[in-house]
Amino acid sequence: MGTRNEPEHPVSFAPPRGFSTVLKSDLKETFFPDDPFHQFKNEKPSRCAKKAIQYFVPIFEWLPKYNLRLLRYDLLAGITITSLAIPQGISYAKLAFLPPIIGLYSSFVPPLIYAVFGNSKHIAVGTVAACSLLLQSTLSDVVSPKDDPALYIQLIFTTTFITGIFQTALGFLRLGILVDFLSHSTITGFMGGTAIIICLQQLKGFFGMHHFTTKTDVISVMHAIFENRKEWRWQSAVVGVTFLCFLQTTRYVKKKNPKLFWVSAIAPMVTVVVGCLFAYFAHAEYHGIQIVGHLKKGINPLSINLLNFNSKYLPTLIKAGITTGLIAMAEGIAIGRSFAIMNNEQVDGNKEMIAFGFMNIVGSFTSCYLTTGPFSKTAVNFNAGCKTAMSNVVMAIGMGLTLLFLAPLFSYTPLVALSAIIMSAMLGLINYEEAYHLFKVDKFDFIICMTAFFGVAFISMDVGIILSVGLSLIRALVYMARPATCKLGKVASSSVYRDIEQYPDSTNIEGILLLQLGSPIYFANSTYIRERILRWIREEQAVSNSEGSNLENVLLDLTGVTSIDMTGIETLTEIRKTLQAYDIKMAIINPRIRVMEKMIASKFVDTIGKEYFFLSIDEAIEASRFLLRESKLQIRCNS
Amino acid sequence: MGTRNEPEHPVSFAPPRGFSTVLKSDLKETFFPDDPFHQFKNEKPSRCAKKAIQYFVPIFEWLPKYNLRLLRYDLLAGITITSLAIPQGISYAKLAFLPPIIGLYSSFVPPLIYAVFGNSKHIAVGTVAACSLLLQSTLSDVVSPKDDPALYIQLIFTTTFITGIFQTALGFLRLGILVDFLSHSTITGFMGGTAIIICLQQLKGFFGMHHFTTKTDVISVMHAIFENRKEWRWQSAVVGVTFLCFLQTTRYVKKKNPKLFWVSAIAPMVTVVVGCLFAYFAHAEYHGIQIVGHLKKGINPLSINLLNFNSKYLPTLIKAGITTGLIAMAEGIAIGRSFAIMNNEQVDGNKEMIAFGFMNIVGSFTSCYLTTGPFSKTAVNFNAGCKTAMSNVVMAIGMGLTLLFLAPLFSYTPLVALSAIIMSAMLGLINYEEAYHLFKVDKFDFIICMTAFFGVAFISMDVGIILSVGLSLIRALVYMARPATCKLGKVASSSVYRDIEQYPDSTNIEGILLLQLGSPIYFANSTYIRERILRWIREEQAVSNSEGSNLENVLLDLTGVTSIDMTGIETLTEIRKTLQAYDIKMAIINPRIRVMEKMIASKFVDTIGKEYFFLSIDEAIEASRFLLRESKLQIRCNS
Repeated sequence: MGTRNEPEHPVSFAPPRGFSTVLKSDLKETFFPDDPFHQFKNEKPSRCAKKAIQYFVPIFEWLPKYNLRLLRYDLLAGITITSLAIPQGISYAKLAFLPPIIGLYSSFVPPLIYAVFGNSKHIAVGTVAACSLLLQSTLSDVVSPKDDPALYIQLIFTTTFITGIFQTALGFLRLGILVDFLSHSTITGFMGGTAIIICLQQLKGFFGMHHFTTKTDVISVMHAIFENRKEWRWQSAVVGVTFLCFLQTTRYVKKKNPKLFWVSAIAPMVTVVVGCLFAYFAHAEYHGIQIVGHLKKGINPLSINLLNFNSKYLPTLIKAGITTGLIAMAEGIAIGRSFAIMNNEQVDGNKEMIAFGFMNIVGSFTSCYLTTGPFSKTAVNFNAGCKTAMSNVVMAIGMGLTLLFLAPLFSYTPLVALSAIIMSAMLGLINYEEAYHLFKVDKFDFIICMTAFFGVAFISMDVGIILSVGLSLIRALVYMARPATCKLGKVASSSVYRDIEQYPDSTNIEGILLLQLGSPIYFANSTYIRERILRWIREEQAVSNSEGSNLENVLLDLTGVTSIDMTGIETLTEIRKTLQAYDIKMAIINPRIRVMEKMIASKFVDTIGKEYFFLSIDEAIEASRFLLRESKLQIRCNS
Repeated sequence: MGTRNEPEHPVSFAPPRGFSTVLKSDLKETFFPDDPFHQFKNEKPSRCAKKAIQYFVPIFEWLPKYNLRLLRYDLLAGITITSLAIPQGISYAKLAFLPPIIGLYSSFVPPLIYAVFGNSKHIAVGTVAACSLLLQSTLSDVVSPKDDPALYIQLIFTTTFITGIFQTALGFLRLGILVDFLSHSTITGFMGGTAIIICLQQLKGFFGMHHFTTKTDVISVMHAIFENRKEWRWQSAVVGVTFLCFLQTTRYVKKKNPKLFWVSAIAPMVTVVVGCLFAYFAHAEYHGIQIVGHLKKGINPLSINLLNFNSKYLPTLIKAGITTGLIAMAEGIAIGRSFAIMNNEQVDGNKEMIAFGFMNIVGSFTSCYLTTGPFSKTAVNFNAGCKTAMSNVVMAIGMGLTLLFLAPLFSYTPLVALSAIIMSAMLGLINYEEAYHLFKVDKFDFIICMTAFFGVAFISMDVGIILSVGLSLIRALVYMARPATCKLGKVASSSVYRDIEQYPDSTNIEGILLLQLGSPIYFANSTYIRERILRWIREEQAVSNSEGSNLENVLLDLTGVTSIDMTGIETLTEIRKTLQAYDIKMAIINPRIRVMEKMIASKFVDTIGKEYFFLSIDEAIEASRFLLRESKLQIRCNS
């Protein structure tokens, strides 16, 4: 290659960009990948200010354009989700061992906050089963909800406050990247596992039991159920099964005919109303069917004075706040995005975090516990035809009226009806099909999913999720440690070079070994890359020798390598040294901008010589052939 | 694209390989990247067995070919390293708060084991300063070396045993991959930080102090030195500075004239001998200069009966064993490899681990503590011209003779001479130049290096190394979460398409946006990739609109994408859905084998249609243009 003419299309040896340029570009890609400021470019300051306000407080963007036509849709959607919010609020509060009224409070204030700051049109705010249970199981470690309910409620509000602060901080720091590490497989497994344990816990309500465990794993729960067999009440079980059948039937109707979604949407409310009437007229209390009990009138009392930052509990609260905050956020953002994609809209994850954060901070001041955008409620909202966040306002108004006037009516709700509602909701979250799909397409994704599922079901919710995320990260690191390298051959009657494993028809190029390296070339894989390349060379030499030819050139195609570090560059230098000993030349093809910058800065380019860099495979092969001819010529001349 | 003719070179839609094929190939790349069994292919069983023995016990490979000529070299090298092993053995044992004789024992048995199982020709076995200090600082947490020296020694042997088991297990499990995660930058910083704290600790010896701290961080050590100022002895300091100057001068001589390496190699022995003579004749003990004290004759006593697996200490011992084992292994393997590369030889990391493991297991039975292939000794061995592991045998014989006959002579060694030897060795380990080089080439590598350096110097050795490795992993994960995507343009007067940022002369293709995606497309970056692509499209549309043209095709070049997971495939589906809404077509160019397999398995290929897959950029562009013409024609016909 040394003596050839200059190639027509030289590789760019532009001096590396300045450190600050690279850093700025890196930070932008890491924290502002969606380029939120693009709309402020080339605008007047006054318009900029207006846009900035609209950006940070989305209600200013949609409210001015709001009209009666939209309100009609949102009104219908809002009423539908209110009818779901009441039974779900009461049920999930019971799951968190909280007074049912707090569940209702939680659907009043947070939706109003979300309507102002949220940027998804479809999310319906409310409490979620998984986080309610997780809160309960974490806080039960430090305080018993039964023995000291006042302290327990204080700690719940404080945890909600911590969650809010955490979510807001993540949003402002643009750390949406953290949520990205909860993979779809992890969430599928987590949801399934949670659904299982929540269903099992409902057996307490089904059998009308009084004593139960605060642990969440399958074994403890099953043990608790069978240990207290004497408490089982058949009356309760009959009522529960009846309700469950009713709810599952409505779900089936919805599945068969999606237009009848409202049947399944109002079913929980129907269950509650029927349950109340039944309990009232049949004096169910005296027949082993427990009821919710007294619910007082009036909207949310202030709870800011109840926040308790006692250092004895703080570590547990912070742990609970961060875990539930992350899970709630992941669920809310993922769901908001899924529905936005259906309408080709964007949801900004970082802005959503801030909205969720504000919602929980204000919520913790006004007797609400952890809220987010739960899947079931959001799906109902979407199906009911919501157009803007106004449906949340409608729900809040409906909830406010309920709290002011109707709350006491719900005191007759049988616990078993709530159990049936929760169980029915949870059965819908076990996604067999997705798990099977994962199994078919990607075994490792399936293992990650199953780890979350069994971890949650048999150990505990936080351990399950940590194991599953850990496994995802190990997979990512193994990917990194063993980047795919392949040997390229010329595809028959074309000018392209492709992986010979994938295109077995492609042919070798005489005397040349053409390798495409995987990305990145980092410390974690530099040893591997060296050994892998040496192995290719060994195999190639064995073939060449048997054919009587000689391997003279190794061409490394770096098209796919987007990043390299110091160890990687040293590895390339070492490989070249080894090749020199075998009398084989090494050339580099198409290093990308970041790789080239490092190669220039580290003097690698000077070490191996600019004439060994090529823009394309064709040019590199041509140059190698030229040299091959030359050397053969020289041998003939000498002999 | 729909109506075009079939392309000449179709993309391979071969059915995905079987699960077991993929798994086998993955496992091979992960655990056997060097293909250790390639030499057994096509061999007779008898030769196979012989080769297998030679493979697992390398001495059978080199000993039969051994001859007198090689012995001459190894003898010289062996004697040279013996002269270094004696002072270093005593010094590092003092660093680990062990009786000096154990340091000498440790250079007798382990080298013999290594000569049998090791596969590096250059490694000289011995103890290392960093691990000696780390052992001491970890074990001092559970037992005081001063108050209960017998128990302390038991725990040191037990830790060595655990290290041996751990290293052997890693080797058999082919987990050399773990060592890969200790990056060069981390090791540079760790060595520098360790050198600093070890040097500071030597001030105890320099000033002849009796009381000192067991902590290792700079602040505690400085505090200990100045707190006990009353103990300072000027006589000791004068002797120490004299020796240090002598040692540094010999290093300088070696640096100026590498042929005189032996001057610096025997300098520590000279220091010890001169120190002994001086101490003996000047009765140095009575002038504030402490000496090593009684050393008894005789080779290693058995210590297998001293192993102590008391559950009270076990967790600490396991922690210490694993940490020191990993560091020692990383140092030994890295050094063995560096020297092997100079001679174009290979060192098998996994086999080295097994050799180190055996060495430490047998060592722990015979009164030795943690040994590996230390940098200084190995470099001397290499420079002295060693040819095989026989030099280790020579050293072991030299050491055995010393233990049998000469040991008592060394009891007069002044501690301050040992301090000077350690300090001189450590000063050579602070690699300013490397740190500066990292700063110039890669700021993040520099930060990783400095984290290890300051972490070790100011917090503790294990925290420093954990922080640094953690930072390397975060970097790897951020790389993964934000893969580099670029827009390609046609390079002037050529047929290749390159990054327009790198080649600003390259031109846009009308109506087409050509993007090259980075690898891999995983859950952790799927949101980013979607947002990034939508940003490119937004920017492209802004340009197109101002030019009056229209963006009609988005071509995704997947040449560089070596892996994709389920979330990644869903993201591509979503992107396509979004593009359809804008009336833009999406095509896939050159998916690699693994990506294509997942696309087929997940029905992605069926969803978007095989006609949207292309083997090369050229073909995709041609097809898009064809369609563009067609659609324009149609518009003209219609109007």
